Amino acid sequence: MQEMITVAVDAMGGDNAPNEIIKGCIQSINEDSNIKICLVGNNIIINEQLTKYTYNKEQVEVVDAKEIIETCEPPVMAIRRKKDSSLVKGLNLVKEKKADAFVSAGSTGAILAGGTFIVGRVKGVERPALAPLIPNKKGVSLLIDCGANVDSKPSYLVQYAKMGSIYYENVLGVKNPKVALINIGEEESKGNNLVKETYALLKDEDINFIGNIEARDIPEGKADILVCDAFVGNIILKYTEGFGLTLFSMLKQALMQDVRSKIGTLLLKPALKNFKKSLDYAEYGGVPLLGLEGLVVKTHGSADAKAIKNTIIQCKKYSDLKINEKIKHNF
Amino acid sequence: MQEMITVAVDAMGGDNAPNEIIKGCIQSINEDSNIKICLVGNNIIINEQLTKYTYNKEQVEVVDAKEIIETCEPPVMAIRRKKDSSLVKGLNLVKEKKADAFVSAGSTGAILAGGTFIVGRVKGVERPALAPLIPNKKGVSLLIDCGANVDSKPSYLVQYAKMGSIYYENVLGVKNPKVALINIGEEESKGNNLVKETYALLKDEDINFIGNIEARDIPEGKADILVCDAFVGNIILKYTEGFGLTLFSMLKQALMQDVRSKIGTLLLKPALKNFKKSLDYAEYGGVPLLGLEGLVVKTHGSADAKAIKNTIIQCKKYSDLKINEKIKHNF
Repeated sequence: MQEMITVAVDAMGGDNAPNEIIKGCIQSINEDSNIKICLVGNNIIINEQLTKYTYNKEQVEVVDAKEIIETCEPPVMAIRRKKDSSLVKGLNLVKEKKADAFVSAGSTGAILAGGTFIVGRVKGVERPALAPLIPNKKGVSLLIDCGANVDSKPSYLVQYAKMGSIYYENVLGVKNPKVALINIGEEESKGNNLVKETYALLKDEDINFIGNIEARDIPEGKADILVCDAFVGNIILKYTEGFGLTLFSMLKQALMQDVRSKIGTLLLKPALKNFKKSLDYAEYGGVPLLGLEGLVVKTHGSADAKAIKNTIIQCKKYSDLKINEKIKHNF
Repeated sequence: MQEMITVAVDAMGGDNAPNEIIKGCIQSINEDSNIKICLVGNNIIINEQLTKYTYNKEQVEVVDAKEIIETCEPPVMAIRRKKDSSLVKGLNLVKEKKADAFVSAGSTGAILAGGTFIVGRVKGVERPALAPLIPNKKGVSLLIDCGANVDSKPSYLVQYAKMGSIYYENVLGVKNPKVALINIGEEESKGNNLVKETYALLKDEDINFIGNIEARDIPEGKADILVCDAFVGNIILKYTEGFGLTLFSMLKQALMQDVRSKIGTLLLKPALKNFKKSLDYAEYGGVPLLGLEGLVVKTHGSADAKAIKNTIIQCKKYSDLKINEKIKHNF
């Protein structure tokens, strides 16, 4: 028999809250009877939404929280002051082991700060890291860190490499995944002080470190785990998103210029749709915050029901694979 | 009457040297009678190549240089030791005012080091910057710096913003171009120490500073000049190149999956070709090293005759517009 997992979900975070969030939660429990959801947020609004759906009542609990942390608020202060927010209450459920995971489409900064302060770091982990999957030609790479540690130390990056390896090996099922350090050249002597010092340390770690990777080789899928500080990670993540969307709209424009092209485009509609999907990183579910005592997952601010459902299913997998236990074991 | 300009060209640098380089030089003088070329490199090889073309002999001079600096060599040491290299001799021509500009498809590191040590910086400029144009939805943005200054100071970035504004305004003909600082959030409080300190300084400069730009907004063309340190610039530049190429090959794959799509793709061939061209940053010519006492331009390592020709024509424009004089005037 499979183990039951309880996922706390921030019903009030993100552009499509609470409707799409709640819809996604219901879809997840209707797909998997081993998932229980704690919907955290304004109980009046949530209960009203819930009447719209048919589902097993035992799989849903509502935890009332009357405050909302907005994305524009300074994260640390918001976490401290808004004790009755859906975000703080959800994180506390993980801390108190009442939930196995917490999912939110809300403020990234507040999730990072709250994850660290409320749930707490695994002993030995200096900084937790936000690690999204980005598309490449062969599949996906894990980009670590895209979080809050913008002025990183070499020792943080070494820990990201180790946590990323464990995550990738287990979730993607790739034995001994290839770890590369994002740099401006392939040679060991290249780069700024941070990457040069990190390179020297990574050589001695028990991971499959393949050296530096230049940004031009990232889309080719030359490495499974891409290690960098959060500033660089954030730039790559958001550039991937923006570039993909802009390219697609440029392509559409280029393809609608004359009758001949219009007919061609019409024929290509299904193929183009698939192509666009492969660029959409929301397809790959939520982004885990690695290195915490519990599972905290950030989903895209514009996450819809499908993205929320995917993320919850992903939490189940993460829990079944005991990834947190494996990270703890290595630190 | 137009002024004559002398461009020294490294005949031995780049993947396609010397054949494509020489071919590009000949194309440039056959297009513009106000350009004179100094071909720097092995005179036996160059003279043999030159017999293949018809051109005005007065527009070409050959300067013998028997050594070649390879891209794998440590730049500073190579510049010091290989005094008889095409790169060192070409840069010396600019230093001695025997040439107005130097163009090379060779080692970026050696061009940067040689530019600084041989040609020298404009008085007041702390670090010269490599500033390529990258494509966006509306046209192009200037990405500054993509050079060698991987551990930058805020004062360097402020100077990049000023030099970039002068360059963009003159070359692209855009009055008061928009300058943005690449950051991981739009708010002034966001980012690492470098960008936070730079933001504070940029507010007081006499440029059109529009604040921070997130990487996702770069492809939309929200800013004309994108300011960053060389590590970040290099990542964005190379990711743009790699992402564009990979996307295109993924797209092709997606479009050739069934008969319906194959017919569509055939109809779209001309439109797709135009689209690919708009992504190819080699189309935009060479990349100037701003802040030097003379004009030094790096072209892509795989530059062909057309790219070399475009770069030489671009040198003429740069010289006619007196951009270096304008930078000097501002420092």
